[in-house]
Amino acid sequence: MVTMQREAGYGREQRSEQRSELGEGGEFDLIRRMLAERAAAASGLVRVGPGDDAAVLGDGTVLSVDMAVEDVHFRRSWLEPEEIGYRSAMAALSDLAAMAAEPVGVLAAIALRAEDRDGAIAIVRGIEEATQRCGAALLGGDVTRSPHGFVIDIAVIGRTDAPITRAGAVPGDRLWVTGELGGAAAAVHAWRQGGQPDEEARVRFARPSARVHEARWLAERCALHALIDLSDGLAGDASHVAAASGVRVVIDIDALPIARAAVAIAGGNAGEARALALTGGEDYELLFAAPAGEVEPHVAEFAQRFGSAITALGEIATGDGVWTRTADGRQQRLAAHGYQHFEES
Amino acid sequence: MVTMQREAGYGREQRSEQRSELGEGGEFDLIRRMLAERAAAASGLVRVGPGDDAAVLGDGTVLSVDMAVEDVHFRRSWLEPEEIGYRSAMAALSDLAAMAAEPVGVLAAIALRAEDRDGAIAIVRGIEEATQRCGAALLGGDVTRSPHGFVIDIAVIGRTDAPITRAGAVPGDRLWVTGELGGAAAAVHAWRQGGQPDEEARVRFARPSARVHEARWLAERCALHALIDLSDGLAGDASHVAAASGVRVVIDIDALPIARAAVAIAGGNAGEARALALTGGEDYELLFAAPAGEVEPHVAEFAQRFGSAITALGEIATGDGVWTRTADGRQQRLAAHGYQHFEES
Repeated sequence: MVTMQREAGYGREQRSEQRSELGEGGEFDLIRRMLAERAAAASGLVRVGPGDDAAVLGDGTVLSVDMAVEDVHFRRSWLEPEEIGYRSAMAALSDLAAMAAEPVGVLAAIALRAEDRDGAIAIVRGIEEATQRCGAALLGGDVTRSPHGFVIDIAVIGRTDAPITRAGAVPGDRLWVTGELGGAAAAVHAWRQGGQPDEEARVRFARPSARVHEARWLAERCALHALIDLSDGLAGDASHVAAASGVRVVIDIDALPIARAAVAIAGGNAGEARALALTGGEDYELLFAAPAGEVEPHVAEFAQRFGSAITALGEIATGDGVWTRTADGRQQRLAAHGYQHFEES
Repeated sequence: MVTMQREAGYGREQRSEQRSELGEGGEFDLIRRMLAERAAAASGLVRVGPGDDAAVLGDGTVLSVDMAVEDVHFRRSWLEPEEIGYRSAMAALSDLAAMAAEPVGVLAAIALRAEDRDGAIAIVRGIEEATQRCGAALLGGDVTRSPHGFVIDIAVIGRTDAPITRAGAVPGDRLWVTGELGGAAAAVHAWRQGGQPDEEARVRFARPSARVHEARWLAERCALHALIDLSDGLAGDASHVAAASGVRVVIDIDALPIARAAVAIAGGNAGEARALALTGGEDYELLFAAPAGEVEPHVAEFAQRFGSAITALGEIATGDGVWTRTADGRQQRLAAHGYQHFEES
């Protein structure tokens, strides 16, 4: 789905390389803004226009699309075809999780070369598996020839009576995150170094879980003020919440739930592990803000039910931007690291 | 949207060349069938699964996706970027016309190279214009980098209380078609010969009209038994109606409304002009079947209102396949020309 800043991040040190080689292209933010503006003009029809994770129609229908391009979002040498399909579908379904919407259906458009037909069949199987895991149905799609590699576009439809957007966080809210961060980035880091990721890292990249069930479970129990899925990386997605809500997002740096795989790939360098957790994309965990006391009573049951933690990550404050906070209370703006600027105007 | 047989056709004589160079790839029918079967398994949820032009959910929501790939569906030397966007959106919106659904919204996913950014902005403008013309809203999308040319996937959502599918034609029905056929194919024919199409042909390829208003107007006035849009070409799409309805589709060859541009490009060869009208894809006209007397009273008003004719093209009979009928009543099966077989099993 259109976001106002969208760039795949797999660790800060590789950002410039990614731009030219791997990544969704920060240089296209102008087009993304244009799409978002057009959608905003349709606001009589939509309750939540793009700029958020998905469009919500007046009747509660939630829609999003997510395109995965070979050698931009994945490399064939990294993934089995079934995994390519699985993660493409999960990336799109995660946009429904980000609105606490109930998944209904998926349409898959696939472009492929003639010689990749068997791979495409496996891709459809992967899409189907991800779709079923999220309680949705594969409703159809389009299959066409590509002169080059795979292109997979997943359109998802869901329903919600009460979409939770990025825009409702208020100062005083607590900030929460599900699961662990940096695992998918650790896998990409390993591949890019010419190595192989360990199994945990590989699974986190190849078979991410869209937190659709978790998001609805939380939304049924807690008055969530703002919700987003972590597709661009914590720093980037937190900046979307900050911008949409008009608040400062404060992240307690010591609270970061760093994936073991990210710690391992960082080889004992704590700063590097933190960077992977802060900026690594495609973990598809949930980041959310809620008044103090709303989420706390449900942390234990969440862990038991979903086998995954919810971590108190920080707070929402007055101001703007995304700031890290150390144990001694010192805050540092993440904007200085370059996550929030537009490439072009 | 998935159809059981899908190949771009621009005149019979070029079919083998198209396979390798331009065309959606008949070799992928196995994957299309797989997607259609998966969707059929979701039939508790959907009223009309793929195999038809769009999926219809139980609440009347209609969904479809249509992917356009550079050098497969269009060439950059043929079209302005705005036209690339316009026709991509119209192709998808035509799937809503094919169900007599009311268009609601469009989501656009676009992959592009960094140097094509200005072109992509024009593509979005073209998508927006097509969307507005059909009474829908541009709801958002996704923008990402492509290592090669443009890839545009359009997801459309619409509504209908009474979808009209390909499956309801019965023997005795009359067969009708809107507009004129072969115009888009004439343009492609000219380009492929190294020339330039005349303006009429060019417009028919570059700026087709999805017949969304026409389809709803007809559906409100006539008891249509079956309806499809002509994306694959008359012969191919008529074969979808024949297969889905379990009937024979009989086309009066002298009744074919051949576009002037197709006659012109055929240079006086009547057989060639007919072939363009029979097999040329992407005219996006409507083909429909209705009991005798249902459509006839509305032909004149349709022409006046929409500036386009409805032509009585033939009839539905018992049997199977698509047959042409000459003035002396002789019928010839179009299957013999190879439109209906699957490339692979």
